[in-house]
Amino acid sequence: MRLPGSDLRVLNLGIAGFADAIASSGGRVTQVDWQPPARGDAKLGRALARLVNHPEVEEANRRAFAAYLAASPVLEGIGTARREIPGMGRRTILHAGPPIEWSRMCGPMRGALVGAILHEGWAGDAAEAEALAARGKVRFEPCHARGAVGPMAGAISPSMPVWIVRDPATGRRSFSNLNEGLGKVLRFGANGPEVLERLAWMREGLRRVLAKAFESSGPIELKPLMAQALHMGDEVHNRNAAATSLLLRRLTPAILAAKVSRAEAARALAFIGGNDHFFLNVSMAACKSMLDAARGVPMSSLVTAMARNGVEFGIQVSGCGELWFTAPSPVVDGLFFPGYSAADAAPDLGDSAITESAGLGGFAMAAAPAIVSFVGGSAADALANTRRMGHIAQGRNPALTLPALDFAGTPAGIDARKVVDTGILPIVNTGIAHRAAGIGQIGAGITAAPLDCFIQAVAALAEALPA
Amino acid sequence: MRLPGSDLRVLNLGIAGFADAIASSGGRVTQVDWQPPARGDAKLGRALARLVNHPEVEEANRRAFAAYLAASPVLEGIGTARREIPGMGRRTILHAGPPIEWSRMCGPMRGALVGAILHEGWAGDAAEAEALAARGKVRFEPCHARGAVGPMAGAISPSMPVWIVRDPATGRRSFSNLNEGLGKVLRFGANGPEVLERLAWMREGLRRVLAKAFESSGPIELKPLMAQALHMGDEVHNRNAAATSLLLRRLTPAILAAKVSRAEAARALAFIGGNDHFFLNVSMAACKSMLDAARGVPMSSLVTAMARNGVEFGIQVSGCGELWFTAPSPVVDGLFFPGYSAADAAPDLGDSAITESAGLGGFAMAAAPAIVSFVGGSAADALANTRRMGHIAQGRNPALTLPALDFAGTPAGIDARKVVDTGILPIVNTGIAHRAAGIGQIGAGITAAPLDCFIQAVAALAEALPA
Repeated sequence: MRLPGSDLRVLNLGIAGFADAIASSGGRVTQVDWQPPARGDAKLGRALARLVNHPEVEEANRRAFAAYLAASPVLEGIGTARREIPGMGRRTILHAGPPIEWSRMCGPMRGALVGAILHEGWAGDAAEAEALAARGKVRFEPCHARGAVGPMAGAISPSMPVWIVRDPATGRRSFSNLNEGLGKVLRFGANGPEVLERLAWMREGLRRVLAKAFESSGPIELKPLMAQALHMGDEVHNRNAAATSLLLRRLTPAILAAKVSRAEAARALAFIGGNDHFFLNVSMAACKSMLDAARGVPMSSLVTAMARNGVEFGIQVSGCGELWFTAPSPVVDGLFFPGYSAADAAPDLGDSAITESAGLGGFAMAAAPAIVSFVGGSAADALANTRRMGHIAQGRNPALTLPALDFAGTPAGIDARKVVDTGILPIVNTGIAHRAAGIGQIGAGITAAPLDCFIQAVAALAEALPA
Repeated sequence: MRLPGSDLRVLNLGIAGFADAIASSGGRVTQVDWQPPARGDAKLGRALARLVNHPEVEEANRRAFAAYLAASPVLEGIGTARREIPGMGRRTILHAGPPIEWSRMCGPMRGALVGAILHEGWAGDAAEAEALAARGKVRFEPCHARGAVGPMAGAISPSMPVWIVRDPATGRRSFSNLNEGLGKVLRFGANGPEVLERLAWMREGLRRVLAKAFESSGPIELKPLMAQALHMGDEVHNRNAAATSLLLRRLTPAILAAKVSRAEAARALAFIGGNDHFFLNVSMAACKSMLDAARGVPMSSLVTAMARNGVEFGIQVSGCGELWFTAPSPVVDGLFFPGYSAADAAPDLGDSAITESAGLGGFAMAAAPAIVSFVGGSAADALANTRRMGHIAQGRNPALTLPALDFAGTPAGIDARKVVDTGILPIVNTGIAHRAAGIGQIGAGITAAPLDCFIQAVAALAEALPA
């Protein structure tokens, strides 16, 4: 059968089968991959339609995005969690992701919190620590509730040292714990003697050296440093090799000038220099700082946080303040270390998706082709990932540019409306923890934020819109 | 007019005008950019034809390339030029590029040699130093003649500190001077008091700190470090930001452990940390080491050195030993600092094209999209440059991989035959010196090795071939 008219040119949206039929009948057809917005849900579609191009939402997003761009986080120094973090209680331990009670927590988070209890000396052994936690004798709060972020389990206990990042534009301060390195570490749920010994030294020795160093170095501007790292193959989430080197180059003269013994200085420098991930926690606090600047703009659909507690994936949007929109945390389909598989993996965990929320990590993958060997895929995928994220971003960050895309700014300011409209999910470059406490990292990969979080946010915003 | 036969499909090589005519007559034509090999010179073409696919040449190139790949240069430490460089005379100063007498030298090279004479204390002022040089009272030799390399003017005088690089595969040692940083520096021909003061400190203070540091660090493997830098946006010629950081991370603990005062250690670390080009000279010595391993294979057409003295561009090929094939040094058409133009530029200068000879620099531009802002062009050009160099390379170096090309090895082992056959010229990323002594760097850009050098090499090899 021939189609009528010799010059028929067809654009087929959605189901590809229709295009195939036209092509086999001799028609010229271009297939466009498309799905109905809002999963085809009519009620949700109406909510989305109210928000899209709504002048109030557009203006709110412009304001929130401008505030995000205006932030210029500086690393002010280091302090002790309980002393620096406003409102942090004496018997409180912060954790990653949205709020969760002890009984529902995943293995690695429990392991990390037990380790933090032992680190504080509140219990003599792990069993005692677990009993304490189960009886509600320790208060657990999300890091995000206190202006902080922590990778993986994200445990921050009162005596731990924390990075202090300040945004002069808002005066607001953000915090993160210090990176312990790889292997058996608290953030992956390990809590044995070597972990506790390292934490004890970080609290005493490392904190002291860094505190003295900052007295002579003064604050360190983080956006230029991160921008430089993007030009050196980092996406400053799962790859921080360059950023760590750049931070070290800033800190080394200050550590040498600090009033600490040569042995202390040498140990601190060797520890930092031996851990390519050392900058990660600084990057996270900087991203938290940039996004907190965009918080609380009524009706704004910009995402201000994405975080996971190993059970739930949660997001916050600017117009809904501290509200979490959650969905089950996905299991990451990544590359596993020999001997492990997805069956061993804890669901996605950690506050580190704050980097993607700020346009870094998976959003800036075009900067880090070398990371594809770590999370799977090709160099072309790295470029494609960044380009795809552009479809759900409010704009580009001109302070954070990507050489491989001819110095385009990284896509930033995730718009929850666009996620629901396009079905394109924010990607997250992430490490994978073993589901049992104490085993540690077993792989890494790319995951995506669940659509349900964004659907809830869109519904909440639509409800808040004056009729 | 219609062409006979409706299905005529034409492949047009060379002059595009023929293709245009076919296309305008309704024919299907594909244009291939092509020029006759050897510039269409019949005698040269015959010489080339004898060499191409000649089993002896092919086997020689395989051997030379295997030797290049087998080299694994290690940075053994630092020493004093006169003591370490075999055969270097007491009143000798080494310079970049092929041999050249004082009377023909360019401005920046004269400026640098005058500075080196003052540094050695052989003259009391610049006029006296020039007179000494003009009267032949100082012996000038190419760095390459003594197993050494130096960027830009490449001046190495007897008391200067030099890097010592050793290849365990051959036992051979290579040398380079130490990088002074940017601004007013000897290698761009400056020789004022600040230059001489810095050189004096480098000879005393910096050399001492580094020498003590290497006692505790031991040798540093350079190929893995350079490979890592390629994954961090360096091409280790004009961009060494990552490699410098990586070297610094290796040296810092050793400097802290060294028996030197804290002030000395701090000054050395601040000097290295403040100069993103510090690794360049180490990179050059490592490349020299890899290429020296490939030297002296009879009938091999592999390029073992490309170097410029600011008047002539010279190459050496494995089968012709220490012979230089030279042509006038090109003026680099690059990006100039404000207030300068090509009219102010000295012709291309320095031994640093040893990096391109070894498959780095311009050949590895795909690793360094961020450098395009420095030498002009787009990220796509960076990939295209590396791909184009693949056409004149003997193979790929699997130890030096390029993330943006999905971890393909960098193209390496320039085959002089392929350069003459294809007309594709080896590119060189380079800095541009002012033509007058003492002014310094005025720009940077990409230049190309002159075809004439390769034509001479091909002619010489063809003559050496048994009839």
